[in-house]
Amino acid sequence: MALLRPTRPLLPIINGSEPKCRNQRRKTKTFLTRLQEKEFRTEGVLQKPKRREHEHTHTHTRAWSVHFQDFDLATIYVSDAQYNRNIFFDTSPQAVRLYLLYNHWALKILLYFFILVNLSLAIFEEPALVSLPTWATMLVELLCLLVFTIRLVHYAKVIPREKFWKDPKNICIIVVLLLTLIDMIIYGALKAANLYSVRWSRVLRPLLLINVTEGRQLRRAFRSIRNALPEVSSVFVLFIFSVLMFSLMALKLLSKRGLKTIEGASYFTNYLEIVFELYVLVTTANSPDVMMPAYNANSIFALFFILYILVNTYIFMSVFLAVVFNNYKKHLKEEIRQLVRAKRHKMARAFGVLQEQREEGGPPVVSHENWNKLVQRARPDISNAHRELLWRVCDDSNQSFIGGSGTGPNCTFINTETSVVVVETGKVSFVQLADLLNIEVITLKSRPHPLQSLIPSFYESRLSRLLCRVVQHRGFVITFDLIILVNAVFIGLDEENPLISNSEWVFLALYILEILLKLYVFEPRAFFSKHSFWNWFDTIVVISALIATIINSALKSSGGYTSRQVLDIVFILRVLRLIRVVDRIKRFRAIINTLIRIGPAILTFGQLILVVYYIFAMVGMELFKNKVKFYEDVSNPEKAYCGNLLLKGSTFAQLNYCKNNFNNVVSSFILLLELTVVNQWHDILYKISYLNPFSSFNFLNPIPLLGTGFATVTHKSALIFFVLFHVMVVIIIINIFVAFVLEAFFVEYSVGKGDLQTSLERKIEELELAVAQEKLEDNLVNAMETTDNDLSSGQSPTANLPSLLFKVSSKRYRTVDALLQRMFEADLDPEDFAENDIPEDQAGNFANPTFGVSMPSKARILHVLEVFLSHDNVAFKALLARQRSPIKTRRSFTVKHTRRILLVCQCGTALKTIQDKR
Amino acid sequence: MALLRPTRPLLPIINGSEPKCRNQRRKTKTFLTRLQEKEFRTEGVLQKPKRREHEHTHTHTRAWSVHFQDFDLATIYVSDAQYNRNIFFDTSPQAVRLYLLYNHWALKILLYFFILVNLSLAIFEEPALVSLPTWATMLVELLCLLVFTIRLVHYAKVIPREKFWKDPKNICIIVVLLLTLIDMIIYGALKAANLYSVRWSRVLRPLLLINVTEGRQLRRAFRSIRNALPEVSSVFVLFIFSVLMFSLMALKLLSKRGLKTIEGASYFTNYLEIVFELYVLVTTANSPDVMMPAYNANSIFALFFILYILVNTYIFMSVFLAVVFNNYKKHLKEEIRQLVRAKRHKMARAFGVLQEQREEGGPPVVSHENWNKLVQRARPDISNAHRELLWRVCDDSNQSFIGGSGTGPNCTFINTETSVVVVETGKVSFVQLADLLNIEVITLKSRPHPLQSLIPSFYESRLSRLLCRVVQHRGFVITFDLIILVNAVFIGLDEENPLISNSEWVFLALYILEILLKLYVFEPRAFFSKHSFWNWFDTIVVISALIATIINSALKSSGGYTSRQVLDIVFILRVLRLIRVVDRIKRFRAIINTLIRIGPAILTFGQLILVVYYIFAMVGMELFKNKVKFYEDVSNPEKAYCGNLLLKGSTFAQLNYCKNNFNNVVSSFILLLELTVVNQWHDILYKISYLNPFSSFNFLNPIPLLGTGFATVTHKSALIFFVLFHVMVVIIIINIFVAFVLEAFFVEYSVGKGDLQTSLERKIEELELAVAQEKLEDNLVNAMETTDNDLSSGQSPTANLPSLLFKVSSKRYRTVDALLQRMFEADLDPEDFAENDIPEDQAGNFANPTFGVSMPSKARILHVLEVFLSHDNVAFKALLARQRSPIKTRRSFTVKHTRRILLVCQCGTALKTIQDKR
Repeated sequence: MALLRPTRPLLPIINGSEPKCRNQRRKTKTFLTRLQEKEFRTEGVLQKPKRREHEHTHTHTRAWSVHFQDFDLATIYVSDAQYNRNIFFDTSPQAVRLYLLYNHWALKILLYFFILVNLSLAIFEEPALVSLPTWATMLVELLCLLVFTIRLVHYAKVIPREKFWKDPKNICIIVVLLLTLIDMIIYGALKAANLYSVRWSRVLRPLLLINVTEGRQLRRAFRSIRNALPEVSSVFVLFIFSVLMFSLMALKLLSKRGLKTIEGASYFTNYLEIVFELYVLVTTANSPDVMMPAYNANSIFALFFILYILVNTYIFMSVFLAVVFNNYKKHLKEEIRQLVRAKRHKMARAFGVLQEQREEGGPPVVSHENWNKLVQRARPDISNAHRELLWRVCDDSNQSFIGGSGTGPNCTFINTETSVVVVETGKVSFVQLADLLNIEVITLKSRPHPLQSLIPSFYESRLSRLLCRVVQHRGFVITFDLIILVNAVFIGLDEENPLISNSEWVFLALYILEILLKLYVFEPRAFFSKHSFWNWFDTIVVISALIATIINSALKSSGGYTSRQVLDIVFILRVLRLIRVVDRIKRFRAIINTLIRIGPAILTFGQLILVVYYIFAMVGMELFKNKVKFYEDVSNPEKAYCGNLLLKGSTFAQLNYCKNNFNNVVSSFILLLELTVVNQWHDILYKISYLNPFSSFNFLNPIPLLGTGFATVTHKSALIFFVLFHVMVVIIIINIFVAFVLEAFFVEYSVGKGDLQTSLERKIEELELAVAQEKLEDNLVNAMETTDNDLSSGQSPTANLPSLLFKVSSKRYRTVDALLQRMFEADLDPEDFAENDIPEDQAGNFANPTFGVSMPSKARILHVLEVFLSHDNVAFKALLARQRSPIKTRRSFTVKHTRRILLVCQCGTALKTIQDKR
Repeated sequence: MALLRPTRPLLPIINGSEPKCRNQRRKTKTFLTRLQEKEFRTEGVLQKPKRREHEHTHTHTRAWSVHFQDFDLATIYVSDAQYNRNIFFDTSPQAVRLYLLYNHWALKILLYFFILVNLSLAIFEEPALVSLPTWATMLVELLCLLVFTIRLVHYAKVIPREKFWKDPKNICIIVVLLLTLIDMIIYGALKAANLYSVRWSRVLRPLLLINVTEGRQLRRAFRSIRNALPEVSSVFVLFIFSVLMFSLMALKLLSKRGLKTIEGASYFTNYLEIVFELYVLVTTANSPDVMMPAYNANSIFALFFILYILVNTYIFMSVFLAVVFNNYKKHLKEEIRQLVRAKRHKMARAFGVLQEQREEGGPPVVSHENWNKLVQRARPDISNAHRELLWRVCDDSNQSFIGGSGTGPNCTFINTETSVVVVETGKVSFVQLADLLNIEVITLKSRPHPLQSLIPSFYESRLSRLLCRVVQHRGFVITFDLIILVNAVFIGLDEENPLISNSEWVFLALYILEILLKLYVFEPRAFFSKHSFWNWFDTIVVISALIATIINSALKSSGGYTSRQVLDIVFILRVLRLIRVVDRIKRFRAIINTLIRIGPAILTFGQLILVVYYIFAMVGMELFKNKVKFYEDVSNPEKAYCGNLLLKGSTFAQLNYCKNNFNNVVSSFILLLELTVVNQWHDILYKISYLNPFSSFNFLNPIPLLGTGFATVTHKSALIFFVLFHVMVVIIIINIFVAFVLEAFFVEYSVGKGDLQTSLERKIEELELAVAQEKLEDNLVNAMETTDNDLSSGQSPTANLPSLLFKVSSKRYRTVDALLQRMFEADLDPEDFAENDIPEDQAGNFANPTFGVSMPSKARILHVLEVFLSHDNVAFKALLARQRSPIKTRRSFTVKHTRRILLVCQCGTALKTIQDKR
């Protein structure tokens, strides 16, 4: 958590005392002392003589001015804070430079590309979808291993050696690399000797995805699952106990009645079989079937199954969701809390690196110039205007520097005593930079339309103006909505009809006309700006459809030959066009936008599922490859039983499930997905069936043989593989997924904008640079995208607005961490702002009941007031987070908050007066 | 909300001014003024001359002493508050007495009994499970109608007539009764004339369950669902749009490929059919089957289905859960907020009725005597000791009265100024009574063992003491756990074996021995106390098993005849015994207890589902009765096609689903449950099948005929019925159910005990009457039941404890409302405590920025301090509610809170000093 930064530069602040503002000094002191302590605690072992020396010269050569190398360091701190990277890198200049390189986006993409290549090797290895010679895949794998090794060596150069060897991630990568190498050698040797061999190291491949430094989200997800396991397993044991109890009861009640299943097999006579059937019933996959024989015998038995479903399917599964959700959230919250704390420490380091002293003995500050350089390096992609805006937010009191005892507007009327309230404004406004950089701000430049400068005479003519008004009219939008609906009907009709197929040209023409008209009326660069997703979508879909349709009709007219692939693409593009209707209805857009917003977080789950699927697919391929075969050729007699005589006449073969096999990676993944969806999974793996000719002697034997599916073609114990998969994926991972979607939705519903976003927006409003926000009546969520029309109408030639507009893309999170931080914001702050800043012993003193009799020292009272206030502040946030109309309340909060500060200030003055009088 | 209580008796408080404590007076005044205003507002129309007169004499005849009639009234207010009844009853003495009768438990049970009878008439009416002549059912129904009418008339006598006719509940009941009567007459007439007739009014029966005054929970649930509908429907429309889009794409991609389903029918050629199939796919019921033909044709099509499942099954269904949950919770919260407010008002009324004035011009108070009488009447079932305990909690400062400016322990050291902080203690401690009565307190009396007094010489002998030590030893418990496990194995084995069947006697003997030993060692009345659920369970199961086993073997030995029913009961009882193991493992007990605790709330959902099921069953029975028949007789040739030629060879008949029909209420309910579980529901209602001999011409026709199930035997439009049921039950109600279980679990996890419970427990501890709480290491929830052993060991003859012990049954809620209030407590308080008590205009004044320059009046500052404090208090609660270790934090909170009060008091003094100096 604590980063490797020499602490010397921080010391002068503590020495530079200012008698005017005692409390502030004390607070700064405790804060910095703690920082220091932490540093010494964590880095004690690392303090090498070499680095110390460097540090020493470092401190000497600059007399409160900032060096070039320091910017590198500060930039790293800021970007680490921004992306919540927790890497204990070395602070020597060359290590810093290497670290900057290590974090370069191109290298990261390269790494992920090679991980992808490594994973997708499974497509080409036996059992292969596309067969490649063994030497080719081995060569590619070696290349991948080489890349991973280089990356690891690079990482080793960046961080101190002791740290490197203590990190389980690195050890894990090294072990995986070595094991893979060993496996390749053994495999190659056995292959050369024509012996049977297994590429077991393929199971380890996803571990690389987890353990690379960039796999933070994934590691966190796995850690959370691991932490949730103890409690989940206790519920799971109870659940299994309940299944076993019910099975025992079913055995006692039903086994002696001589009931038969529809296939004619004996019903509920074997205990283990009942357990399996009832376990499957929990997933509802065999829902009425398993009950029917008993129900047909006597209606009263239905009660047994109803009770079973109620207890195990509805209640226990809800309890699973609750337990998984609760634990997952709890651990995640704790991790995020630590992340936020680490972020603040990092920003404090960055502040420490860049700070200067304005006046002798004054508080340390960061100048505008240095700040600018820092932001330029941390995020080169943001515009000057955007940077200036951020500066205005940070430097709220127009001091042209950040830090020191900012005399904010809150307490200016009391000069000496109020600094207690605003003591940390300076540092805080620097620390918030990391979060500010994560807020997406859309910069809109209003430029004149290019046609206006090219052919102004025409563009400003009456006709042109009329056109503009028509296109911007509501009727224009409605007309095209209607056209889309008509198009939908035409798509549904049979395209063999020449009228229908020709109408396609008309629709295409209309769509292209719409885009051209919009381009004419609105500024093209604004129309195709980075954030107008739907404009891009429209244009791409329409133009692709045009191209595909032309190719298709060219093919058709040339030789009468119609390419199925091209036609498919044409059809898909036609249907995709209809999605535009969703975009036009605000309510729908709001829902869709919410889904898009939680998209990046869902991607983490995608990775999680990829890892689990990959491991199961690799194991499944080794266990079940070529046990079940699929034949394209209909005439092949083996098709009827999937190429395995054991499956002759089985339900598996009857249902045409032959393609559900583990013969290559792709079909394995599809099969695992089917198992995740749960339905019919018992059919896929195992079913008692009298249709199986081999089990005809079962009529006498009370224990039936296995009938169908994978348990048939291998062994009963194959069930373990499938049940394990079910427990892992369906019970744990899918529950976490649902829980996460729920939580993210609740946050979208209940939490308003963050404090920082609000302050940013306030600043934008103050500067009168805000884009007019449309009033949205949908109460689901505030639609955040401006519609093309609204946005662009502000830029029509008639408007008279400033040439630069900002808009906070309010709820889009640049990183998953930002979303998570947002989710737990209300719960996070207590520990981070308030509790930590009161020394325990001092707080303890106030519990003394005699305190009420004798008047305490002013400092003490002020301290308590401060705690009081900060607590209140935090608690208020918690309250606010739960309220529905956040912005309204937030405003009233600000008013009340100000009032309270006033009050506390006055109390302070009052007490001072009392003391003066004494 | 506001109740009909004459406001006169409250007025003297307002007149009785006390110059010492201005702020208190003002607060009381605003509070009472508001109450009064509300009353006049709501009761303006009701103020009849007659009642006014009564009131007048009322006020005159008593000079601040309390009448007998007033106790009736106060009791009603308290019990209304306790059970959250919101009935605007008349306050005349006879109406009050009628109202007391109306609320009598016996009458309520009678009402519910007749509702049940009315609902279960469906069993006997055509299509009947047990046929009864029409006149018999009609007579019973008439009786039921009569009872409902009497109950309604009773209700009409209790509340003012205007209120009665304005209440939609009553109108609804009257309309239902009238319509039922009309329907019965028409039905009777048509039946007499042998014409076809429908008992359509049966659909209305569940409406009575909703609209009786006691159906509050159910009405609230329906109201919440109705309120959630707009948003749910907007998501639903989007979801349907997505299904339609995907269907269109599927039509375009797959229809022209000439694919066939396994039955040989054409695949994905008809648009509506695709929509239905894909809708079913969302429920995963036809999961791999619907995909297989396309997947077999080309692997790439699997992608289409995967995308579909991801979007529609996983994401949209999660969004549904989120939206339903969020809306349900939001509206429920608002309702609970109003309930809490109404409860406080009611308690304030009760206070107003019972208040006296201790000293001239002093604040109104309620004496111990009156309080005692009140509690005795409100809850006659609680013991004197328990009542005394409650009094101690209410009268925390030992004043022997409640009310007035209680000089609590918080601020005693400052005499004049601090009343602002504790101003409402008196009233609050009275208002909390309603909640206190809802806390379950277990009173334990430690009596000597009866044997000790009967044969003391033996009971105190060495052997007896050894026995006691053995039974209380841990080994004793473990031994019996092992015996249970061995028993489980024996149950699993074949009971035909004489060894096994004889071993049953051994186990029974062992269990009976265990119970006898425990009874010997522990006090029998404690062992069988009301709250020792598991002791009761054990004893009943073992004794029933003994009786059943004896009967069984008697039957067997007498004639070799074994009654199947008796044997079934024996088996069930044997298996039930095993559940005791769960009770012995703490972790499991904790989970089970949580489930039991949220049980009552789940029952509300049971009612909800009953209502929905009943309506669908009634409609379904009219639509589908006798379309599908079930034959017990195996030899009947009609069995093969369920007595309906249309089903010949269909999957429906093949799967033996004939008993899934609407031929009587019971099978209708079971069928609806199967539809709720979702799996195979498409098979039940509709399936395309070439096995149907009537649809063999389908091979040429691209639009297939309907194949199987209920859509076959009636009409395609029957689908509407089933899809409607799916949307109503699976998408909305089941989601709410899951949401509720989740929320209840989270509350169990995160929220500690309520403030009141804590204060009650503190008082118990103070009085040293607490039962030693065992230290539980399970981190899931605190197990609330004391184990028999721990509890009883405290009462063993060796212990030396007070003769009376209390224990708060911490998390068991007497009413569902209490649980709900608990769930939303953190969100509730702001509006109810703080915000309401600040006059808006006054609070607005402080926003004036010039305020900081000129010193404000003391009153104002105190006012702000008060608001400050109350806000803080509330916000703290919100914070606490989110913390994990509630009790620990709560303690530190108390310390901090006290410290703050000290501080505020001091600030007050300081300001006073300043003003004095001026």
